[in-house]
Amino acid sequence: MSKKPSIPKGTRDFNPEEVSRRNYIFNAIKETFSLYGFQPIETPSFENSETLMGKYGEEGDRLIFKILDSGDYLNEVRNNIDSTAKLSNSVLLFYEGLLVRNITDWDNELIIGLDIFFQNDYDKNYSRNFFNQRKTEILNLSKVYKDFNNAEKAAVRQNILLLYINDYKNLDLLDPKIATRLVSGKALRYDLTVPFARYVVQHQNEITFPFKRYQIQPVWRADRPQKGRFREFYQCDADVVGSTSLWQEVEFVQLYDAVFTKLGLNGVTIKINNRKILSGIAETIGADDKLIDFTVALDKLDKIGEEGVKKEMREKGISETALEKLQPLFSFKGINDEKLNSLKGLLNNSKLGMKGVEELEFIINNIEKLQLQTASLEIDVTLARGLNYYTGAIFEVSAPAEVSMGSIGGGGRYDDLTGIFGLKDMSGVGISFGLDRIYLVLEELNLFPETVSENSKALFINFGEQEALYAMKAISKLRKVGIKAELYPDATKMGKQMGYADKRNIPFAILAGEKEMDAETFTLKNMKSGEQQELNLDGLLQALQIDKKIIN
Amino acid sequence: MSKKPSIPKGTRDFNPEEVSRRNYIFNAIKETFSLYGFQPIETPSFENSETLMGKYGEEGDRLIFKILDSGDYLNEVRNNIDSTAKLSNSVLLFYEGLLVRNITDWDNELIIGLDIFFQNDYDKNYSRNFFNQRKTEILNLSKVYKDFNNAEKAAVRQNILLLYINDYKNLDLLDPKIATRLVSGKALRYDLTVPFARYVVQHQNEITFPFKRYQIQPVWRADRPQKGRFREFYQCDADVVGSTSLWQEVEFVQLYDAVFTKLGLNGVTIKINNRKILSGIAETIGADDKLIDFTVALDKLDKIGEEGVKKEMREKGISETALEKLQPLFSFKGINDEKLNSLKGLLNNSKLGMKGVEELEFIINNIEKLQLQTASLEIDVTLARGLNYYTGAIFEVSAPAEVSMGSIGGGGRYDDLTGIFGLKDMSGVGISFGLDRIYLVLEELNLFPETVSENSKALFINFGEQEALYAMKAISKLRKVGIKAELYPDATKMGKQMGYADKRNIPFAILAGEKEMDAETFTLKNMKSGEQQELNLDGLLQALQIDKKIIN
Repeated sequence: MSKKPSIPKGTRDFNPEEVSRRNYIFNAIKETFSLYGFQPIETPSFENSETLMGKYGEEGDRLIFKILDSGDYLNEVRNNIDSTAKLSNSVLLFYEGLLVRNITDWDNELIIGLDIFFQNDYDKNYSRNFFNQRKTEILNLSKVYKDFNNAEKAAVRQNILLLYINDYKNLDLLDPKIATRLVSGKALRYDLTVPFARYVVQHQNEITFPFKRYQIQPVWRADRPQKGRFREFYQCDADVVGSTSLWQEVEFVQLYDAVFTKLGLNGVTIKINNRKILSGIAETIGADDKLIDFTVALDKLDKIGEEGVKKEMREKGISETALEKLQPLFSFKGINDEKLNSLKGLLNNSKLGMKGVEELEFIINNIEKLQLQTASLEIDVTLARGLNYYTGAIFEVSAPAEVSMGSIGGGGRYDDLTGIFGLKDMSGVGISFGLDRIYLVLEELNLFPETVSENSKALFINFGEQEALYAMKAISKLRKVGIKAELYPDATKMGKQMGYADKRNIPFAILAGEKEMDAETFTLKNMKSGEQQELNLDGLLQALQIDKKIIN
Repeated sequence: MSKKPSIPKGTRDFNPEEVSRRNYIFNAIKETFSLYGFQPIETPSFENSETLMGKYGEEGDRLIFKILDSGDYLNEVRNNIDSTAKLSNSVLLFYEGLLVRNITDWDNELIIGLDIFFQNDYDKNYSRNFFNQRKTEILNLSKVYKDFNNAEKAAVRQNILLLYINDYKNLDLLDPKIATRLVSGKALRYDLTVPFARYVVQHQNEITFPFKRYQIQPVWRADRPQKGRFREFYQCDADVVGSTSLWQEVEFVQLYDAVFTKLGLNGVTIKINNRKILSGIAETIGADDKLIDFTVALDKLDKIGEEGVKKEMREKGISETALEKLQPLFSFKGINDEKLNSLKGLLNNSKLGMKGVEELEFIINNIEKLQLQTASLEIDVTLARGLNYYTGAIFEVSAPAEVSMGSIGGGGRYDDLTGIFGLKDMSGVGISFGLDRIYLVLEELNLFPETVSENSKALFINFGEQEALYAMKAISKLRKVGIKAELYPDATKMGKQMGYADKRNIPFAILAGEKEMDAETFTLKNMKSGEQQELNLDGLLQALQIDKKIIN
């Protein structure tokens, strides 16, 4: 293999600087999660396919990376083809008959049918042997299929029949959905929410509820890679399950504020909405059945303006009377209190809507009393993120206005997180941070501290074996007090070694040749200023440690 | 889905305590790597299959988890079957003819051949249309195959022909190796070494050599899961590439010592050997060709004793004369200096062997001068770990004798790490830490500090909306000085809330009802002793902060 190696589309290598910068963000998030009482869990990179499939809609299912069970996964398919080739036309007719009769208890029918078949036409032993051969395959297949439900089993059986009767044209055995189940029982995590729900249900007896957990792990999506969209990326989630208290929503607003303040990213806007308000509006204007159409249109207010939104709503069949009732939303401006009043006017006939306003008011009021550090909280009724999913609060965080970037975080409340795995009535609320976008924002605003990198503080120049030992002794001492120092491994030309310190941005070079060894000193050279001083070990330690405080 | 969800065999969920304990080990390793001048990189979880396949031997290839390219991966196969079914016997003969003639420039031959074929037998348009239909498939296939080498291409072409001539019996298209390439272009990382080699070659122009990198990421192996062997586990590697200096081996010995000292794990033994010594011994006893047999037998000295080893060597065809020469190895005891002398005696006729002894001596001598903190370094000529791979030093770390556990770390020098990707003459040396085993050892010896957990310091009891707001104001202040505190989200029975603090091992409960609110105080209750004190906010801050230093 002589061509230059590469990595799969949509994946990334991270060099030391990038890793350090990413860790800087991860650490800010982790420390804050922990400060707020969230505790870390981790789940496996791959889950059983059945845990993930069907949880993200049809599009999501398609984007889940499946993992092959073993190298021999296609043998099954090969065996089927093999059998087909051996099938005689007459046996085929028998199978066809079974198929036409739409038999369900297939194994039994096969045996009975075969007996009849033999008696009518063929040498008994030959055909029975032939069937026995098939039977093993059928039994093998049934082992593979034991986790299928009845409908899936029926589909697979039909497919085997189709194979046996050489009806390749209608072959559905190789239909991606079924075939995936045949060859792949595992799939890479698509998000952290479904694995978290699985974790809560699986470990419900060990967990003390309300359970506050955070999880920072990569997820994988077979999306078409494009700028800013990757096939492997990290999610940073914090969730609480097992309590409906709105104080949790209050805390999540504070948490967003705390993390972005810590990162020096001032001026983010935490937008908040409530699913009940959206439902209430739809109810009020008599468009319960058009909730999605209505929110999709409203979401475009920023882009297409009031008239544009109204036009789209009209096209979707929302009446003029309804649009009149909606009018307050189009002049929905001002501070949060004004917006709350406006919503109360609009929704006073919707019990559900008023419940949403009440929830929103609780959060807004308490945040006003507790105060945020650098972020602002803003009601945004056009916010409809994850509408099918959230049942209460909906959050989305925007980067400061000077950066053009989509949302850098989001979340909300979902009343039935664990129901999909059989544990009912577990209300949850959670938020997520978008690492990659936060990285880009900090980069664009030049907010990464210079000291983020894990770089060494000093490079000892290597002048030969004795000098190197002298250096290594000093290095051991420096490391013991936490100063990052290293020896250039080879006693090559000094220029090359200095060049190395330069390229790696190591701030100091330390030279210790015969002269220094005799005097038990070291020459400390500042790589930027070129300034040099001769110091004993204590002096060196002190110089680097003082500087450590300044530089690190 | 009502049955309790589960995770795939060989994978694990980690609860908060386990994550914290694992992070405690990761952090000790990371901080030390960084202190020694290693910088972090990260590579994608999956690599192109061709990057990984063939790098770990046949067994390794089998254990690599392959990822499906998309949901439609089997369509290719289906299309082939489909075509087959449509093939007439006469067209078949034509293809068969091509096959027999062992044509290599197949696409051209097909076109020429088809023309002849038409003229001889059939309605020109019908057959040409038929071929055009095939041609699309061939072109599609050739797109898929474009990364195959010539031998692989030929194999695939032959397979297509076999399909076309209905010779299912000899069908190799579905041979796992080739089929894997057809449906899966990606595979999960099997270790960190091959991705690192790929990284170095791919980014060689951005890297300053010698390149000291560390990498702590999970790897995946489709091994049969068993106690202590997982399908997903972390590797913690540090390597240097681009220098042959033995100071690096010296540093790795120091690094092992530093990490285990930091973890409080005293008494580990760092065993060291050298590939050149093993080769030298084999050379000396005239058994160059039996190096593997010889080292496999020698490796069992601990278990089966001198006579057992000799018996096995005899069975493998090692002569009595050779065994006599080996005698010093069987009485290979004493301090490192004695062992070095003994080796010099044994190997004085082997240039390669003496080079190994010299390397070993350099490392041993310098470590003696620099001294280790808690570990000991011990020559072990039976150590043959990764023999096919290492070319110089070989390391392995054993846990203290009181714990029965395999190696908790290992590594060595490999002279041609990046050669597999076309970058020659890059010597590398590296070590690895076995996280899971280190975890078990620390657990068994009770060495995890109690303060490892990220648990909250105090739980504020929730007495209702006003009290909760009063609590939340205090919590904000505590968090600002880094004290982990939280509010119980619901104003339920106090017993339940105290029980929650208890179960979560939160050391303090803070009660603030009407009385405290009036007095602007808080009642701090020690959950262990039951002791209570009423404090104002400053007092509370101080009490928890003092305690923070003690407890955290």
